[in-house]
Amino acid sequence: MSETKVYLLDGGSLVIDGYHFFWNRGPGGEMRFPSYAVLIDHPDGKYLYDTGFDYDHVMKVLPFEKPIQEAEQTIPGALAKIGLKPEDIDYVINSHYHFDHCGGNKHLKEACTLCHALEFEACKCPQPFEMLGYSDLSFAPEIARQAALAAGSDAVQEPPQDVDQYTPKFETVTGDQEIAKGLWLFETPGHTAGHYSLMVELAGRRPMLFTGDACYSQKSMDMMCIASFHLDPVASVQSLQRLKDLAEKYDAELFYSHDPDTWPDYVKAPAFYS
Amino acid sequence: MSETKVYLLDGGSLVIDGYHFFWNRGPGGEMRFPSYAVLIDHPDGKYLYDTGFDYDHVMKVLPFEKPIQEAEQTIPGALAKIGLKPEDIDYVINSHYHFDHCGGNKHLKEACTLCHALEFEACKCPQPFEMLGYSDLSFAPEIARQAALAAGSDAVQEPPQDVDQYTPKFETVTGDQEIAKGLWLFETPGHTAGHYSLMVELAGRRPMLFTGDACYSQKSMDMMCIASFHLDPVASVQSLQRLKDLAEKYDAELFYSHDPDTWPDYVKAPAFYS
Repeated sequence: MSETKVYLLDGGSLVIDGYHFFWNRGPGGEMRFPSYAVLIDHPDGKYLYDTGFDYDHVMKVLPFEKPIQEAEQTIPGALAKIGLKPEDIDYVINSHYHFDHCGGNKHLKEACTLCHALEFEACKCPQPFEMLGYSDLSFAPEIARQAALAAGSDAVQEPPQDVDQYTPKFETVTGDQEIAKGLWLFETPGHTAGHYSLMVELAGRRPMLFTGDACYSQKSMDMMCIASFHLDPVASVQSLQRLKDLAEKYDAELFYSHDPDTWPDYVKAPAFYS
Repeated sequence: MSETKVYLLDGGSLVIDGYHFFWNRGPGGEMRFPSYAVLIDHPDGKYLYDTGFDYDHVMKVLPFEKPIQEAEQTIPGALAKIGLKPEDIDYVINSHYHFDHCGGNKHLKEACTLCHALEFEACKCPQPFEMLGYSDLSFAPEIARQAALAAGSDAVQEPPQDVDQYTPKFETVTGDQEIAKGLWLFETPGHTAGHYSLMVELAGRRPMLFTGDACYSQKSMDMMCIASFHLDPVASVQSLQRLKDLAEKYDAELFYSHDPDTWPDYVKAPAFYS
């Protein structure tokens, strides 16, 4: 049986203000940060944890985040670099449904799509301050339609014309879950209603603990400073602490979702962790 | 029986970033905004709703908020302008215990101090992201000591040396309350755990509804955009909506806590509303 491999798929970068990155701390000013997807090539199948942002969506809805994304930083482009096609992916796990974590989902039509049950509900009926976060549901036209109806909007989100309309197979889960051997989902809510972090156990190294947006960066963890984008800041701080405790308990290495400082040191595809 | 009069006591101004004023909207950049206290000269006694900031505290703990405050903008100075002394105040009502709403409390040693029961608990044991907000408890050394102990800090807050140490008489309340005839406290949580807005009914004009920090400005209300400083953003949005509903129900005029645009049009002491 083959051993699990983990590939980090570079997805380009975005810009937000320092006051968004470090809530109420800053300093202010533009911060460019990476976005990436995690491919877990597991004996049970190929799992993708998050899928980055869609360039056209960001340019249309949030151009002020100044996206940079080359062709090889899209999901099809990044998979091609390791000899895979989108239809080779069996499962998509989204930490949450913010646009910069599900922008590539639309390409993964064969995959079963996993998320937390609370996240599945939240994205259909976001809080007013979450509208931009949940602005790209184009991979799931049926959910986008429900969200638009809930918001009282006629402007129903439509998928890009070059992508067939489809609504993926969804599976929702709750609680901490070992979804495949050595593949752990840990509940880390606060940033959104149903946020999952992911731990991957590997044969040849310490477990990798992907924080998702429960912790943007090493500096966020060091300062115990959450991001300005959140649903529940009290839960967010608890989730930060939980990640710290989990890393200690499992002797896991933390991989942050948007860390401009640690990202250069991460091993990127086509190289991998195993 | 004399009629109720309302005096707005100018307390100077502070600076925060636009991303703090309008959460996740901005635009970014420095915004200077007013801070004021509300004196209600009521047949039952003299009530002060909020007491602004203490210049020395801000310069010591949050100098980046660039306080501007003349002598006549302190509580003793502002009261003197209308022929009153601090000991003439019977009740201090704090919308909440953030430093820019209770900074003048320390001068009001004869007054009974009213706040929401949840606020009274929250200020003793703030969330990590609320530490700066609750940084000036010098008017209540006993509470400051409890807060410092809860935070595990040896640096117990001490009152300034020119102010006698005292812990005021506290009264806590919950729920909406008519605390004196025509003087209404309305629960508007979210910004902090136990936030109160205040409505004053007057003989000669529409009721005045003081939002406190449940709504910084007219623009915040128009955009339904809460401030970046908050404990529970979902509750904050509900409180914004509640203020809008209350204003409509009572045909009340909204007075915002920190509005650089509407502040110039407010009537300031020694002139008054009645």
